[in-house]
Amino acid sequence: MHIKEDQHNHDLPPLYPLLYEELVRKALSEDLGRAGDTTTDAIVSLDDTATAIIRAHAPGRVAGIDVARYAFHCLDAELGFEILLHDGYDAEPGDTIAVVHGAARPLLSAERTALNFLTRLSGIATATRDIVSLVSRHRARVVCTRKTTPGLRTLEKFAVRAGGGFNHRFGLDDAVLIKDNHIAIAGGVSEAIRRVRRRIGHMVKIEVEVDTLDQLEAALREKVDAILLDNMSVETIAEAVRMTRRRAIVEASGGVTAETAEAIAATGVDLLSIGWITHSAPALNLSLDIAFENYVSQEFAV
Amino acid sequence: MHIKEDQHNHDLPPLYPLLYEELVRKALSEDLGRAGDTTTDAIVSLDDTATAIIRAHAPGRVAGIDVARYAFHCLDAELGFEILLHDGYDAEPGDTIAVVHGAARPLLSAERTALNFLTRLSGIATATRDIVSLVSRHRARVVCTRKTTPGLRTLEKFAVRAGGGFNHRFGLDDAVLIKDNHIAIAGGVSEAIRRVRRRIGHMVKIEVEVDTLDQLEAALREKVDAILLDNMSVETIAEAVRMTRRRAIVEASGGVTAETAEAIAATGVDLLSIGWITHSAPALNLSLDIAFENYVSQEFAV
Amino acid sequence: MHIKEDQHNHDLPPLYPLLYEELVRKALSEDLGRAGDTTTDAIVSLDDTATAIIRAHAPGRVAGIDVARYAFHCLDAELGFEILLHDGYDAEPGDTIAVVHGAARPLLSAERTALNFLTRLSGIATATRDIVSLVSRHRARVVCTRKTTPGLRTLEKFAVRAGGGFNHRFGLDDAVLIKDNHIAIAGGVSEAIRRVRRRIGHMVKIEVEVDTLDQLEAALREKVDAILLDNMSVETIAEAVRMTRRRAIVEASGGVTAETAEAIAATGVDLLSIGWITHSAPALNLSLDIAFENYVSQEFAV
Amino acid sequence: MHIKEDQHNHDLPPLYPLLYEELVRKALSEDLGRAGDTTTDAIVSLDDTATAIIRAHAPGRVAGIDVARYAFHCLDAELGFEILLHDGYDAEPGDTIAVVHGAARPLLSAERTALNFLTRLSGIATATRDIVSLVSRHRARVVCTRKTTPGLRTLEKFAVRAGGGFNHRFGLDDAVLIKDNHIAIAGGVSEAIRRVRRRIGHMVKIEVEVDTLDQLEAALREKVDAILLDNMSVETIAEAVRMTRRRAIVEASGGVTAETAEAIAATGVDLLSIGWITHSAPALNLSLDIAFENYVSQEFAV
Amino acid sequence: MHIKEDQHNHDLPPLYPLLYEELVRKALSEDLGRAGDTTTDAIVSLDDTATAIIRAHAPGRVAGIDVARYAFHCLDAELGFEILLHDGYDAEPGDTIAVVHGAARPLLSAERTALNFLTRLSGIATATRDIVSLVSRHRARVVCTRKTTPGLRTLEKFAVRAGGGFNHRFGLDDAVLIKDNHIAIAGGVSEAIRRVRRRIGHMVKIEVEVDTLDQLEAALREKVDAILLDNMSVETIAEAVRMTRRRAIVEASGGVTAETAEAIAATGVDLLSIGWITHSAPALNLSLDIAFENYVSQEFAV
Amino acid sequence: MHIKEDQHNHDLPPLYPLLYEELVRKALSEDLGRAGDTTTDAIVSLDDTATAIIRAHAPGRVAGIDVARYAFHCLDAELGFEILLHDGYDAEPGDTIAVVHGAARPLLSAERTALNFLTRLSGIATATRDIVSLVSRHRARVVCTRKTTPGLRTLEKFAVRAGGGFNHRFGLDDAVLIKDNHIAIAGGVSEAIRRVRRRIGHMVKIEVEVDTLDQLEAALREKVDAILLDNMSVETIAEAVRMTRRRAIVEASGGVTAETAEAIAATGVDLLSIGWITHSAPALNLSLDIAFENYVSQEFAV
Repeated sequence: MHIKEDQHNHDLPPLYPLLYEELVRKALSEDLGRAGDTTTDAIVSLDDTATAIIRAHAPGRVAGIDVARYAFHCLDAELGFEILLHDGYDAEPGDTIAVVHGAARPLLSAERTALNFLTRLSGIATATRDIVSLVSRHRARVVCTRKTTPGLRTLEKFAVRAGGGFNHRFGLDDAVLIKDNHIAIAGGVSEAIRRVRRRIGHMVKIEVEVDTLDQLEAALREKVDAILLDNMSVETIAEAVRMTRRRAIVEASGGVTAETAEAIAATGVDLLSIGWITHSAPALNLSLDIAFENYVSQEFAV
Repeated sequence: MHIKEDQHNHDLPPLYPLLYEELVRKALSEDLGRAGDTTTDAIVSLDDTATAIIRAHAPGRVAGIDVARYAFHCLDAELGFEILLHDGYDAEPGDTIAVVHGAARPLLSAERTALNFLTRLSGIATATRDIVSLVSRHRARVVCTRKTTPGLRTLEKFAVRAGGGFNHRFGLDDAVLIKDNHIAIAGGVSEAIRRVRRRIGHMVKIEVEVDTLDQLEAALREKVDAILLDNMSVETIAEAVRMTRRRAIVEASGGVTAETAEAIAATGVDLLSIGWITHSAPALNLSLDIAFENYVSQEFAV
Repeated sequence: MHIKEDQHNHDLPPLYPLLYEELVRKALSEDLGRAGDTTTDAIVSLDDTATAIIRAHAPGRVAGIDVARYAFHCLDAELGFEILLHDGYDAEPGDTIAVVHGAARPLLSAERTALNFLTRLSGIATATRDIVSLVSRHRARVVCTRKTTPGLRTLEKFAVRAGGGFNHRFGLDDAVLIKDNHIAIAGGVSEAIRRVRRRIGHMVKIEVEVDTLDQLEAALREKVDAILLDNMSVETIAEAVRMTRRRAIVEASGGVTAETAEAIAATGVDLLSIGWITHSAPALNLSLDIAFENYVSQEFAV
Repeated sequence: MHIKEDQHNHDLPPLYPLLYEELVRKALSEDLGRAGDTTTDAIVSLDDTATAIIRAHAPGRVAGIDVARYAFHCLDAELGFEILLHDGYDAEPGDTIAVVHGAARPLLSAERTALNFLTRLSGIATATRDIVSLVSRHRARVVCTRKTTPGLRTLEKFAVRAGGGFNHRFGLDDAVLIKDNHIAIAGGVSEAIRRVRRRIGHMVKIEVEVDTLDQLEAALREKVDAILLDNMSVETIAEAVRMTRRRAIVEASGGVTAETAEAIAATGVDLLSIGWITHSAPALNLSLDIAFENYVSQEFAV
Repeated sequence: MHIKEDQHNHDLPPLYPLLYEELVRKALSEDLGRAGDTTTDAIVSLDDTATAIIRAHAPGRVAGIDVARYAFHCLDAELGFEILLHDGYDAEPGDTIAVVHGAARPLLSAERTALNFLTRLSGIATATRDIVSLVSRHRARVVCTRKTTPGLRTLEKFAVRAGGGFNHRFGLDDAVLIKDNHIAIAGGVSEAIRRVRRRIGHMVKIEVEVDTLDQLEAALREKVDAILLDNMSVETIAEAVRMTRRRAIVEASGGVTAETAEAIAATGVDLLSIGWITHSAPALNLSLDIAFENYVSQEFAV
Repeated sequence: MHIKEDQHNHDLPPLYPLLYEELVRKALSEDLGRAGDTTTDAIVSLDDTATAIIRAHAPGRVAGIDVARYAFHCLDAELGFEILLHDGYDAEPGDTIAVVHGAARPLLSAERTALNFLTRLSGIATATRDIVSLVSRHRARVVCTRKTTPGLRTLEKFAVRAGGGFNHRFGLDDAVLIKDNHIAIAGGVSEAIRRVRRRIGHMVKIEVEVDTLDQLEAALREKVDAILLDNMSVETIAEAVRMTRRRAIVEASGGVTAETAEAIAATGVDLLSIGWITHSAPALNLSLDIAFENYVSQEFAV
């Protein structure tokens, strides 16, 4: 096992505990229920201690390690938690991500909650990383959508960053994205854009979803900031990029998979937006296993 | 499109709104942020109305339709919401699951939150259903684990039921599950079970996770209620089933996939427990599309 | 005053602060209101310190001492709090349970909230202990019910454990208890049990409440885990125990008081369930009195 | 059974749902847990209906009936809930307090939560009523203390009102009560009162707890609004009343029981304050029993 | 009194109750405390009804009328609430803004909370409107800042809209605003901008605060979206506008008052940003007065 | 800059964090939104540190400095925060109120939230102080009203105290204030007072708002504790004071401004109550500016 030096990924924004404390506390309460960890409380005594290792069983990218640590510390602030692979670093199967040591009861009782956060967020980071690496030779950034787990948007958008991706809108209120339904109600692309411009603040960007090259032309005439090409073929995307001539950011959306990503990126689009990296990324396979005191004294002593 | 008559699935437990209202409200707040749906508010007028159709784009099992409805009603209690496929029913690509009609602004602003719940829960129900159907000729029930999304356990366990599966423990406190770490600390299977029996209530069942047939024998000697066979080969599972002679419920866990489920079920185990139906099930592909007034008047008028 | 060494009762489960922090904070807010402790703030200066003694005025069993400590620490984390009698230990009149020392303002302002928790929970523990000791020569365990104070179930069930009792169901969802109303709707004991078995998980036990020996026989035929004998005479209970022949756990419920407990236990039942130990146990008489600095320096200096 | 006409007790203040909604919702969530009412959901079908009667099994005073109703309506707003004995009315054994009718599932699932509120609050109202009636020939009002269940103070103070009692302070901030600990720190009764007068608002009354007649004299010299006589004998109380000559309200506290109340009241004190009517009042014995459709059609049809 | 027809201001975004319900409920709880409206409850009977008029006593712009209505409906959903002047409309002294009628108790008990919201928000709308009208002949929009009341940002930003202003950033996360402190840490305007561009999403605009024309030039070279001129003289602002040549939005900030607004706007800047319209706008003088039944029947009957 | 020694104002009540923690956390969440401080995170590195000075730009009275400190500590408990001017002390333009030092990211990200609390509360304290000093030669205390910002009552009432004022009622439940609407419904001053006396507790004071001297006489006959003279001329107030002859506290309300305060106070009234010191006090002009490491090492090193 190769242990990287303890260091944060400097490209990642800070994830203040204020942003996830309530989530973690609710998740722990959900698992402990009204009676607590009946099994552990009956078998493990107040004085038992343990050292446990969080290890990867599949290759992946770590995200959410501070959230996992907070889960343990909610039950026992005295638990030691050494992070070997911080958010944004890659793990190979068998790699140790973190070591937890201290009282065995809280360690075991917080395990599942900690892992439920860590495996989900690392799963998202891993899916993102894999697509990012497929298109690394092109200008295209990989971005996520608002198709996130209810309540976990901040954490899942962070995981996309940890995977090397970028974030699209965080909600309905931080940018304008004019979609087909809006265009239909407004009666056309130009009218929709004009209505928006009359009402929005000066710090709000406008993106328009287009289904056809005619719509694209209308949007470009209105000088929008970005264009979302919805479910177009690679050929049409390429044509749209040519027509746009860098006058707006061009985002390809729909049908971006491991199979198609490289070809789409090769068209020269600025962005590949992908819903499934948040809504359908499989959790990263991680485990927590107990290794007893003598073990930690040799290898992980601090 | 074949529309089933409006009816509830009588095998499903009721999902009282009390159990999800706060979740939905927080999810809507998360999406609306501080400024609301800037795009819709600028383009759609207070008086615009619309009829929208929630439609499946892949075969699947519906779960969470009442939760989705509540998302719309949080923004506008006057929105009509006709459910055509209730929780527990199957949808084919193109099938209409529900029709929403009323003021266009709240309809569009609640869309993503409603779908984020519905696609995730239906994804879990679908994954469960698919495994259930693979083992339908055998006695084995499909059960879920505690590997659920933090905060959504009640909903995800419900989705497993909607998919035809059954629920394992809902938390650390409603049953005893003695795992490898507990056995290690206790110093053996028998000692772990005895410690538990001294302390737990009379309505709490005991299950023990075993890695070997020797451990199985020890557990059976202690007359536990259930045995979890962890990551065993099909052959060993079969042997374990024979050894147990129905004196305890036998659960096979680990490595249960679409490829292996049938073979494992054929051993005669009582339960297949599967973590990925909750932690890694892909979301079901659904969409909400606006169809205008004249459309609804012909096909969906009530 | 005999001071026991500082030690935890090892038979009690841990009571993680996560499970009561919000309750204590709300209770303190309820007492402080909008303006705080007007009396103390006006009379006691910022620099005044005090040492206070929490003392028993009646014989009883301590429960909730950590909850009380948290109430003080919510207002001032620097307050010293020495526990002399931990949860699960007995106090005689005059015994010191804990000593609080530090800034006098927060000490006085948190007093009532701390005592409101401690006297109530100790009252429950005491009532339980007293019944437990009455039946100590018999096999019967004393168990509580769901007749707990709204919002305090976890704490009150813990207090029952501190009193030497055991816990019945913690809620409607962790075990099945088929009652008269269910049987009436199902149309009979057997039908009710069968409906349950079709739907519940494999880790859920089934108990049936019976009013007659005929119902008992029906329940035993269905091999339920436990039988609740509702409001039966001692003679009928004895007959029911004989009929059951240890094929199910037998619980006597209704009319179990200090006067009747021993006779009921002598029938050989496994459980005595008692609602009043939670819903009507009188609070244990405790007080907090200030003893000044010179006092603490002699007797409680640490 | 004598049914009083449906009417509110006009002497009681309104109890706005805003003041208890969160409490009831949390209590229901506490009981339903993560999986809901497993027993009822399995046995009772979606279409089953029932009529249930909430009936007294002991003589008592009703309090909290609106809170109980809200518990049912949280699960099903369609449930009918006819109140026959409103808050502040007396029930004899066998009297019907309310009738609930509608879907059987939510009716049964909300039962325990509704009753946990109703029996506790009615227990407090009953204990208060009983003492009030014992002293009805005297000027003394019965008042409660701050020794209430954490989180339930508003409801329990209301129950005291329903029992015919009055309320003392609701918290630390709505009036000044100078106690022995304050006097000790201030160095004397007069100094304590003077410190208070310098700092409090003009709408805040001052009461002083005194242990001796000397302290009483000091307090009277400072013209306080009220005097609390702490744990004095009936003779000393009588002497204190004479000394006070109606210059301040006189409150007797400590040792007020059914046995002593009349004698203490006969001294002419203005108030009897009693902690145990809130902290140790036994719950009123009530039950909810199902009576089927044909029954309601004859007797309770509205 | 001239009564405008009941209509919504179509230029205002919808203010979903979801965004303010918790705020209003907490504010009502803050005012009702633990004992409710003691005065009203004692004097006004359960059956008393009243009609009350919310009237302006100073010229102003209405904002928050729906929030006020919700305050009344929290206590009594049956209260009638007729809005005569919706958000975004002007009131002259003496104008009726709304009429409330129904049970007198909840009407009086909710009054102060309702008015506390309405007078504050209308005060902000009025201050905004007054500045907007002063600069109406110029291109400049009036915008607010993040200097809002903690917890009320959504409502106060809405009030600015109701006053005819526009919104700047709603928080730290919906746009980039590089300030002097950021520039100092980065070591220069250009470096700060470049660091931002590497990390932010494609839908995020960049504004830079500049103190000098040299900084302005550097910012323009980096093609930022907007420039904030911090506390510059009118002459320097004019020069900055000329230098910018519409390549970026120009915002003047600092020292914008009723006295200076017109002159600053005359320089041709795009935006005037003003902190005091939210942090220091005086509340609009409104009152609620009761007018009895016969009064309403003649003038306000609906 | 003259730095007062670090000391608390001993006349102020303690402001326990329990009373504002949730408010500050919500305010920070409101500002950080879902994505955090995008600007700072992109420009400032994890390792950058800074020293910042909170300085006054106008003369004023400090209030809320502990609340501001808590805002910084929510994001980083390691940030140093030296308070130079505690609550209740006066600041001149240029005075340093506090120095913050530590990691630059959390320091900058918490700045606005901290200042939003501090400038508002100090604005209230300053407005109060200014009026208090105008009437310092008279007996009259300055008191606030219930016209406070929704949710911030405790903090704003504290700020009034920091300004040298006193507090009127904190809510509807801690004292009786009979207003014109109550009198109208009761049918007269005397009847209103009598209804109240029958129902309120013995620790509740009664104040009556009167519009005429006739009403005053009626109120005095009923021996109320205090009289509120509503919007009377100075002459009438003087007459009312004479009529009252110190039999009740006399409060002048309405129209108390910097111009009128002294004349009103000169009538001999006991109280001047002023709504605008809470609802319309302008925020105190404060700023936070970064001064780098070398600066702190010389002047502020601790």
